[in-house]
Amino acid sequence: MSIRRRKISVVGAGFTGATTAFLLAQKELGDVVIVDIPQLENPTKGKALDMLEASPVQGFDANIIGTSDYADTANSDVVVITAGIARKPGMSRDDLVSTNSNIMKAVTREIVKHSPNCTIVVLTNPVDAMTYTVFKESGFPKHRVIGQSGVLDTARFRTFVAQELNLSVKDITGFVLGGHGDEMVPLVRFSYAGGIPLENLIPKERLDAIVERTRKGGGEIVNLLGNGSAYYAPAASLVEMVEAILKDQRRVLPTIAYLEGEYGYKGIYLGVPTIIGGNGIEQIIELDLTADEKAALDRSVEAVKNVMNVLA
Amino acid sequence: MSIRRRKISVVGAGFTGATTAFLLAQKELGDVVIVDIPQLENPTKGKALDMLEASPVQGFDANIIGTSDYADTANSDVVVITAGIARKPGMSRDDLVSTNSNIMKAVTREIVKHSPNCTIVVLTNPVDAMTYTVFKESGFPKHRVIGQSGVLDTARFRTFVAQELNLSVKDITGFVLGGHGDEMVPLVRFSYAGGIPLENLIPKERLDAIVERTRKGGGEIVNLLGNGSAYYAPAASLVEMVEAILKDQRRVLPTIAYLEGEYGYKGIYLGVPTIIGGNGIEQIIELDLTADEKAALDRSVEAVKNVMNVLA
Amino acid sequence: MSIRRRKISVVGAGFTGATTAFLLAQKELGDVVIVDIPQLENPTKGKALDMLEASPVQGFDANIIGTSDYADTANSDVVVITAGIARKPGMSRDDLVSTNSNIMKAVTREIVKHSPNCTIVVLTNPVDAMTYTVFKESGFPKHRVIGQSGVLDTARFRTFVAQELNLSVKDITGFVLGGHGDEMVPLVRFSYAGGIPLENLIPKERLDAIVERTRKGGGEIVNLLGNGSAYYAPAASLVEMVEAILKDQRRVLPTIAYLEGEYGYKGIYLGVPTIIGGNGIEQIIELDLTADEKAALDRSVEAVKNVMNVLA
Amino acid sequence: MSIRRRKISVVGAGFTGATTAFLLAQKELGDVVIVDIPQLENPTKGKALDMLEASPVQGFDANIIGTSDYADTANSDVVVITAGIARKPGMSRDDLVSTNSNIMKAVTREIVKHSPNCTIVVLTNPVDAMTYTVFKESGFPKHRVIGQSGVLDTARFRTFVAQELNLSVKDITGFVLGGHGDEMVPLVRFSYAGGIPLENLIPKERLDAIVERTRKGGGEIVNLLGNGSAYYAPAASLVEMVEAILKDQRRVLPTIAYLEGEYGYKGIYLGVPTIIGGNGIEQIIELDLTADEKAALDRSVEAVKNVMNVLA
Repeated sequence: MSIRRRKISVVGAGFTGATTAFLLAQKELGDVVIVDIPQLENPTKGKALDMLEASPVQGFDANIIGTSDYADTANSDVVVITAGIARKPGMSRDDLVSTNSNIMKAVTREIVKHSPNCTIVVLTNPVDAMTYTVFKESGFPKHRVIGQSGVLDTARFRTFVAQELNLSVKDITGFVLGGHGDEMVPLVRFSYAGGIPLENLIPKERLDAIVERTRKGGGEIVNLLGNGSAYYAPAASLVEMVEAILKDQRRVLPTIAYLEGEYGYKGIYLGVPTIIGGNGIEQIIELDLTADEKAALDRSVEAVKNVMNVLA
Repeated sequence: MSIRRRKISVVGAGFTGATTAFLLAQKELGDVVIVDIPQLENPTKGKALDMLEASPVQGFDANIIGTSDYADTANSDVVVITAGIARKPGMSRDDLVSTNSNIMKAVTREIVKHSPNCTIVVLTNPVDAMTYTVFKESGFPKHRVIGQSGVLDTARFRTFVAQELNLSVKDITGFVLGGHGDEMVPLVRFSYAGGIPLENLIPKERLDAIVERTRKGGGEIVNLLGNGSAYYAPAASLVEMVEAILKDQRRVLPTIAYLEGEYGYKGIYLGVPTIIGGNGIEQIIELDLTADEKAALDRSVEAVKNVMNVLA
Repeated sequence: MSIRRRKISVVGAGFTGATTAFLLAQKELGDVVIVDIPQLENPTKGKALDMLEASPVQGFDANIIGTSDYADTANSDVVVITAGIARKPGMSRDDLVSTNSNIMKAVTREIVKHSPNCTIVVLTNPVDAMTYTVFKESGFPKHRVIGQSGVLDTARFRTFVAQELNLSVKDITGFVLGGHGDEMVPLVRFSYAGGIPLENLIPKERLDAIVERTRKGGGEIVNLLGNGSAYYAPAASLVEMVEAILKDQRRVLPTIAYLEGEYGYKGIYLGVPTIIGGNGIEQIIELDLTADEKAALDRSVEAVKNVMNVLA
Repeated sequence: MSIRRRKISVVGAGFTGATTAFLLAQKELGDVVIVDIPQLENPTKGKALDMLEASPVQGFDANIIGTSDYADTANSDVVVITAGIARKPGMSRDDLVSTNSNIMKAVTREIVKHSPNCTIVVLTNPVDAMTYTVFKESGFPKHRVIGQSGVLDTARFRTFVAQELNLSVKDITGFVLGGHGDEMVPLVRFSYAGGIPLENLIPKERLDAIVERTRKGGGEIVNLLGNGSAYYAPAASLVEMVEAILKDQRRVLPTIAYLEGEYGYKGIYLGVPTIIGGNGIEQIIELDLTADEKAALDRSVEAVKNVMNVLA
């Protein structure tokens, strides 16, 4: 019986989508299809070809193609959605939400049509609401539609802690709940350096500053770049999730999952600790929260619901 | 005795420079400093920070910083130069050459001042002449100033052959001499799939087409992208050279080396097969060429000299 | 749709089998089952557990179990056979052949029963004949029964050449046809350093000595060890073949394939250049041989047939 | 300035030493010298050659040699000691201690003579006392003599927890203090799955059983193997420590460090959380212990002192 190489499609050929595609191919996780709109077909093909031309030197075997035809994504095992617009000056938040929501719906219809058995990972912001939109539009079971935010948020947190303590990033862990960015609920008591709670190692005011910097981590990069937003760390975060699925690793990763009563919420996509494996989200891990944490999570849920209301 | 981590500086924070920095850090080859002009200091810092924030997820330990201050590059083991402008509409080739040459000189003075013992790898086009400029300006021994073109050209060639034969890129090798791009002299007789000469496996007209496509490989990407040029494969090629130096691998790689009589040329930087290791270029490998090959190489040398004359 | 992790079974928990299992797990190619006879069940379990306990440190996710029950191998994607006895003092070669042949038959029946769709890779010596035995007993199509010898022989050759020239092993390639060890037919004209034919780089007598050393490469290790035979390089060779299958890489590798007229032979398993991918042997590559090479290959075939006659 | 490849020597060519050498070379951490007694020179050479012959296939560049001449280890950056005898039936523990102590002294004199600036990592049992012996004999500063036990103990613990929870080993961490094996003091409150304290995820009696199994983890492998002891996980643990040193990673790892008042003890080598980097042990991390933990650590110290008394 022939063995079929895995196949991953990445929707959106911007910096994040392209970097995601490259990192996936580098790991030989499967063949990669980058898909974007017809007007961007040539640049999409150009990026894919450039990546492919790096493969002999980097030593990976993976076909990488750029396309505007979703037929090329057929039978993908995993599809990553990075498409969408960024908020522009003068644009209301509601306009952003409805524009990206419409993009999500159109993209999802194509994905479902060509890869009815795939797992979808969503990056597009506002990611909690966009993941919900994809879930609804896809008709997929909830375990096969997942949003990314916590892997990235904790990656930033870990980076700042590693710098603060001058330690290897390998030994720093972080933990967040709730929405992405400002709405994030960091659980510092579950964050460690070499297993030692950070509260034992870093003074409270420094730790608070690190948490605050993490919350605004996306904005920090936007401000520095001047034109555009982060893509290396977001792409790496997506790749970790896709790898966990394709290798059925059962990683414990914070992801945006559909809640049906967990943590006391229903009918909402929210950042929670999950087990990610060959079935997508295999389990949501519930934790006992302190009153403060629960209150912060409530606020985060409120913020997500406000966005969802725009879409109702 | 303390062990010092290696240090690599990348001059130019454009797409190629940034991608090079990321791939170097990913391989844990050392700490990485990206340096660009003061006007671009913030974007340079932003890219470096974004990469660093990917490190906990990708699992590499390497500090990555962006700067406009060459003091931060002090004591680098290797410095990669990707700085320079691309040819713009209405700009004469001579203008391009003299502009980039001036950039090379300024950059080189800074590199030499802060890292007098480093090895320099040059990517900036026209690369043969720019490598020569850096060599002259640096006062470094010839083995510590190296240009990149052949690794990229053969990577493209290998990609096209792998596609033609539907084989792993790992088993395809290619071989070029001479200048980059149009001036490249491919030695198809030294190019193989699984050790089998390609001439046995691919009809001549198809092989000629692949060679021609390789020659114009940079332009193919430029045309597709519409705005900008290739950076994944160029960055990967630079990284392979830097890795060979930092790990003292004594790889056999086609690089742009200073000739002092080899192949019958003197006082010119040209693409030839070399051994790359801890000393930079450890040896130039001389081959017996056919009359046709020698004639093609002569033409390539002529083209390089024409560029050098602009600088005289 | 759930994604199933790949599964590889290794028959024989000796040094080669164990090392193969470890290297497979390290690459996260799938879950690994090591199976040996009931009398060795505990040591087999012990080795598997020891490997598994290395996984958190080496950073790989793969279940590894030791067993004597072939039911545990059920639905393997690939099965590697390393089982068999080594020739002992006083044992005739024919006794060795018939003992190992009986082991092959018993093992193959179990493999086929539990993994009817797997691809089998055989290492047991005399490997050409043993692969034939497995092929016959399995009833599998020829592309799913493959023997290992050429990857190992060329690995040794490449090592000796790299030492001779003080070059990276990454840039040295070798090429062999025919039987394993003494019967091997090296095609030095298809062997290179950085694409340059070795005949241009190494004097003939040195190259002859390297070929001769390669032929006797297994014996050299046996003599040094005093008690036992090589296992690191054999295991690495098996792993390269399994990886090519599981990642559908279409590598060009010398393997032991069933000939039905190729190179002028029929009904025999022999070392030839092949394309290895998701279907096992996807193609046999035929080369024009010189008269000398053909004569040497004829002798190699004769030797293989002599062994096969023992089994008739 | 030429770049010198790092150099690591491994004393003892048994299974652990050999596996350590192979894993070091695989990671291209440097050239590797395996040294054993003159009577074992040929097997040592045989293992090294077999490993080297795996390098073209596994794709690593590292010279690996076997020798009985310590001159070949000259100027090593790191030296790993795996030499020593295992306790045999009828041998008293004191005999074991004094035999291995004599081996440590002889080996250390050779190491110091040829690599006066190296860092030494000790595996030989009883490891706390043997590390002390090496420290005293070497005259090295304490940060350059380190014992291994906690990385292995936690690797086993992590493996068992990953199995219990059916999760990726990547997300499980463990934490131990004190002596190796039976004397180990596990700090379960600092052990997590995905950052969540294990006490929240595993019932107490199961967790106790896992701790107990970890304590006896070495014996479990010995019993299964019937003849010999674990080597994959011990080798991987050594390699993680060497990598942290050679790449100056500042990892937080539990190692056996010389205490001068930390945790209330003086003049003893004991397992504690440390920061490992280019200087060897860069820092000992002190934790507030509960009364129970302190009592357990006291007992562990007592056990180590009893062994040290044999040597006084």
